[in-house]
Amino acid sequence: MDSFDVSPFDLRYGPPITLAEAKIVLEAAEQAAQARGWQVAVAVVDSGGTLVALHRVDHTQIGSVAVAIAKAETANNFKRPSKMLEDAVTAGGQGLRVLATPGITPLEGGVPLLRGQHVIGAVGVSGMRSEQDAEVAHAGAAALP
Amino acid sequence: MDSFDVSPFDLRYGPPITLAEAKIVLEAAEQAAQARGWQVAVAVVDSGGTLVALHRVDHTQIGSVAVAIAKAETANNFKRPSKMLEDAVTAGGQGLRVLATPGITPLEGGVPLLRGQHVIGAVGVSGMRSEQDAEVAHAGAAALP
Amino acid sequence: MDSFDVSPFDLRYGPPITLAEAKIVLEAAEQAAQARGWQVAVAVVDSGGTLVALHRVDHTQIGSVAVAIAKAETANNFKRPSKMLEDAVTAGGQGLRVLATPGITPLEGGVPLLRGQHVIGAVGVSGMRSEQDAEVAHAGAAALP
Amino acid sequence: MDSFDVSPFDLRYGPPITLAEAKIVLEAAEQAAQARGWQVAVAVVDSGGTLVALHRVDHTQIGSVAVAIAKAETANNFKRPSKMLEDAVTAGGQGLRVLATPGITPLEGGVPLLRGQHVIGAVGVSGMRSEQDAEVAHAGAAALP
Repeated sequence: MDSFDVSPFDLRYGPPITLAEAKIVLEAAEQAAQARGWQVAVAVVDSGGTLVALHRVDHTQIGSVAVAIAKAETANNFKRPSKMLEDAVTAGGQGLRVLATPGITPLEGGVPLLRGQHVIGAVGVSGMRSEQDAEVAHAGAAALP
Repeated sequence: MDSFDVSPFDLRYGPPITLAEAKIVLEAAEQAAQARGWQVAVAVVDSGGTLVALHRVDHTQIGSVAVAIAKAETANNFKRPSKMLEDAVTAGGQGLRVLATPGITPLEGGVPLLRGQHVIGAVGVSGMRSEQDAEVAHAGAAALP
Repeated sequence: MDSFDVSPFDLRYGPPITLAEAKIVLEAAEQAAQARGWQVAVAVVDSGGTLVALHRVDHTQIGSVAVAIAKAETANNFKRPSKMLEDAVTAGGQGLRVLATPGITPLEGGVPLLRGQHVIGAVGVSGMRSEQDAEVAHAGAAALP
Repeated sequence: MDSFDVSPFDLRYGPPITLAEAKIVLEAAEQAAQARGWQVAVAVVDSGGTLVALHRVDHTQIGSVAVAIAKAETANNFKRPSKMLEDAVTAGGQGLRVLATPGITPLEGGVPLLRGQHVIGAVGVSGMRSEQDAEVAHAGAAALP
């Protein structure tokens, strides 16, 4: 689901995602969540790592607002899906250092928004199981025009 | 602009604003901003003080995201427009104490969202001059169904 | 002890617990602690995650005030006993990601307060071994009228 | 109201207020508030500045929880009523430095709890106008056995 066939080091930061584009991403993510009966918060940050738009579905656990933002920040600020960092933690050993790295929330569900080889922002989703969050995030990312 | 004909002490907290309602508030605020060519971030929090939705218009100063959220939190958590607290600071003397009160951002542009005598959340706007921010916030609040 | 036979995703947030109800929870928790000679801080937050009431038994380690509040916030804001998150950490591997998730204190002893399928707040206990804290928290939660 | 006929420098810290004593202070404060129809949060800290007990009356503005704690901390940690520090701000000039002093919330409503010349803690109240908060705080302090 979070396969990412490009190295973070080959990506550059592009101009920030617009609000209009972010709304399309949010809309697609919300529809995916609604179709599955899922409660989620969805956040979109721009290529500078600042929040552009956020929607929290009714009854979503309120702690998910901060988590959704953190996942989006992680994906944008490290130019990779947050799952790659979760996988590092899961692998243990050296990967555990990620737990103490500033600015990283190593939870599946944060996905960079790309235009070609440029990161224009990221989407983060929280509220359900993390692989479900990621499913919603990818639905959002796929809608980026 | 920020006249508020009810005492904070007569208000109670009601059920949290829904995402559907928050979107209507955001939409109205954005239209007001767009009609004036203004760049703003608009945040809606629920009656528990947690973010429900946020939109940031393109090119808005990025520092305004945190300010918009802080204004909305102030208005909800103290059950009054943030302008009342700004006015206290402006008056000087004893009013300056507000500058050192935890949880208060004394900047015009945060407005409680009321249903009858119940606070169901608040809207906060930042990006322009604070009286312009407040104009946008009131346009948003007025659209609450 | 922390069996929880409902999915967090089936729970909704209800109206905030009242002070009168919170006092009953605190009273029951304190009695359970006193009967066992245990030193604890007990915190009750409402469904918005804000503190409603807190009592700290004499001689309880003072660091437990912040921990009790954090456990209660975790249980309310993520709609599940904090033990579920502690268990994720204990399991290791992927579960370690919880250690770096904003807003989560993965320590047994935070329990949601339910009215039917609605979360009206949570109780958090700290001071003893965490399973003892949880025993006190459950005694408090069981007294909710 | 906040006359304090003893110099902070003549006061010593005594043993911490007990939970039983703190409950008596809270109870008296709540009765005073209830008799006046006031919504307040009341916090008691011990002589180490750590929270012992807190009650928030229903419908009190949620921002008052942090403010009540801050007032109590200020009164205990500086061995004087918080109004003395508010007065410094009100006087202006040099007094404004208080606004930038760590640990001081210069708002009337925080009152030290004395046993003879010893500070055993403090009570802080927030929710109404600050002189009303102080009235409640003094009602609580007066009940200290």
